[in-house]
Amino acid sequence: MKIAIMGFGTVGSGAYEVTKFASDIEVVKILDIVVRKGYEDIADKFTKDLNDITSDPEIELVIEAMGGVDTPRKFVLECLNAGKHVVTPNKNLISACFGELTETAKKNGVQLRFTPAAGGGIPWLYNLLRTKRCDEVTEVKGIVNGTCNYILDAMHDNGADFDEMLATAKELGYAEANPASDIEGTDTLRKTVISSNLAYGTVIKEEDVPCYGIDTIKACDVAYLKEKGLVPRLMMNSKLENGVVSAYVEPVAFKETSLEANVKTNNNLITLTGVNVGTLSFYGQGAGMMPTGQSVVQDVIDIKDGIDMYALAGGDADVKVDNESAVHRYYIRHDNMCEHIEPLIESYEEKDGIFYCISKPISVVEMHKMGNHRKEKGRDMFFAALDE
Amino acid sequence: MKIAIMGFGTVGSGAYEVTKFASDIEVVKILDIVVRKGYEDIADKFTKDLNDITSDPEIELVIEAMGGVDTPRKFVLECLNAGKHVVTPNKNLISACFGELTETAKKNGVQLRFTPAAGGGIPWLYNLLRTKRCDEVTEVKGIVNGTCNYILDAMHDNGADFDEMLATAKELGYAEANPASDIEGTDTLRKTVISSNLAYGTVIKEEDVPCYGIDTIKACDVAYLKEKGLVPRLMMNSKLENGVVSAYVEPVAFKETSLEANVKTNNNLITLTGVNVGTLSFYGQGAGMMPTGQSVVQDVIDIKDGIDMYALAGGDADVKVDNESAVHRYYIRHDNMCEHIEPLIESYEEKDGIFYCISKPISVVEMHKMGNHRKEKGRDMFFAALDE
Repeated sequence: MKIAIMGFGTVGSGAYEVTKFASDIEVVKILDIVVRKGYEDIADKFTKDLNDITSDPEIELVIEAMGGVDTPRKFVLECLNAGKHVVTPNKNLISACFGELTETAKKNGVQLRFTPAAGGGIPWLYNLLRTKRCDEVTEVKGIVNGTCNYILDAMHDNGADFDEMLATAKELGYAEANPASDIEGTDTLRKTVISSNLAYGTVIKEEDVPCYGIDTIKACDVAYLKEKGLVPRLMMNSKLENGVVSAYVEPVAFKETSLEANVKTNNNLITLTGVNVGTLSFYGQGAGMMPTGQSVVQDVIDIKDGIDMYALAGGDADVKVDNESAVHRYYIRHDNMCEHIEPLIESYEEKDGIFYCISKPISVVEMHKMGNHRKEKGRDMFFAALDE
Repeated sequence: MKIAIMGFGTVGSGAYEVTKFASDIEVVKILDIVVRKGYEDIADKFTKDLNDITSDPEIELVIEAMGGVDTPRKFVLECLNAGKHVVTPNKNLISACFGELTETAKKNGVQLRFTPAAGGGIPWLYNLLRTKRCDEVTEVKGIVNGTCNYILDAMHDNGADFDEMLATAKELGYAEANPASDIEGTDTLRKTVISSNLAYGTVIKEEDVPCYGIDTIKACDVAYLKEKGLVPRLMMNSKLENGVVSAYVEPVAFKETSLEANVKTNNNLITLTGVNVGTLSFYGQGAGMMPTGQSVVQDVIDIKDGIDMYALAGGDADVKVDNESAVHRYYIRHDNMCEHIEPLIESYEEKDGIFYCISKPISVVEMHKMGNHRKEKGRDMFFAALDE
């Protein structure tokens, strides 16, 4: 099968390298503004003109690895409309344009696949869809952002503060120069939208999914939780119950003997619950050139071999997002015990003017509202749901 | 697709129940000596005559869920030779007759699949084969026996002794009346042979794989290890290095912050290492009516949909098993410090006439020889490799 790659950065070139391990896949065109260093010997494959790909009848499939939303959306639509299958690891694109892109693929009788868009190198979305063939998935959850996990794991191990570990994560290449989408939870949010859509056959919207990241966590939070045998992790949460989806992103404090608490460095651990299969978890590298490149190429091979698991993605289930029934006790750290917070607190300790609290059961909606309000006011606060 | 089920016990009836969640699969014949209680309404599907299945041209696929080796081997060969695809969760059969059965399937142009034979409800073997399409697998390892994990986890949690927890496991249905193949490691051995064969494209023999179980572990072992922050687990171990496979089954003492140490009750955790994908682990129910039934039906659906992942199983790689290069430090508990053991010991503590030792690096071959020798002599001993 002759294929093209659009965007030859880390993931694009990783996918190219992995195609060397596969049979019958040939990269014939690469769309990028420059010839990547080290690839001068295949400079003739490079082009800056999308038309060289869309108008080439020999190219059956295009890998989109450009990043961003607007340009990739335009280019992917052009490829789909030109009758090319598309594989993309681009979670921003899939989360924002899932309905439009799957519709366009269907209309043109081609496949759109995006297994690496959640879980990176882990065959998470693929197995999620495969499970659905003879099961009903009722829950998806997990650690899906390696940057956050690296920071939280390091803080737990060495007692360092957030800024210090974020700087180390940047040095190691685990965090980008602008890490906002990781630490504020937006990246996890997108993977929650994508995973929920495939799990339940829905098209849920990013703005309906409450999201609280780890950007306000401090060394004192991690130390307090550690003393209680707890470890914080940033979690994708999503359940289907009585026809209603609850989906949200927030830090969760896990017992130190849980699998989640023992996910090290930048790894991911993603879990589904099925009526028949029970609990099924997948662990591995959620990012990186070769793992993600490998996952891209697995999707390419599936298309080449006629394995159409994504036909099960659905996208027409009439299901609304409602988090009113999602209720937890929370760990809350804040700097003043005002009349808004006090009625919600079950017990607390005060140290140096800081309140370390365990709340009564609070709904996710209420907790996030409070957290975001305090964040807007520039007040000092962090919370994490208790896994119990 | 019209299918038949041979053997309608826990897994056979579980598979039947799961077919109700799948599209276009109809069970038309069930081979068993009795009509299972609760299935009187489909008594007309039951037969005692294999010929009713093999001679029915409408039946394209047969599920073998009888258990054992000799009769299933004969029946599966008859089905394959009659041009039926076969799906089986029978690890004893596949471990013992892998070469013969895959050859027969190939000859008849049908598929033989056995994803539930290692990992039960976990799509382990399927994903192992899928990974190979654009990667090189260099290692497979894991917790693949739920009975042993239940016992070890309970001993660690509550300090109970082996016999007591084995009895509880039997009561809960996690262990069979005769648990020898679980606790002596034979079940794990078979899954090691099957996983290695698929990972490396080999046909290795059960008798070439050293195996030491958990039947000699005592509460004092678990307590001693716990004091050192270690947790014992029975492990499948297998590596491909420089064209040589090392494969063996033995207890391993893991740090309490590892994933393996935190696998609870009767769950499994199975891991592969690939050159491209890195470390990839799968966690879930390694047994049980609905999880295993679900995995059987997934294989059926793959065959129905023309997904021939098992074509990658190979079976012709010329690779020998050699454990000489597999060397670990071991925890060893024994009852006399004789001249055979003392030179191998790096450090030890003596309590009440029992020696709790950490060994110098010892090869797996030598350690197992010593362990088996002592077991034959009826001497008190247990060992576990240190994961370091």
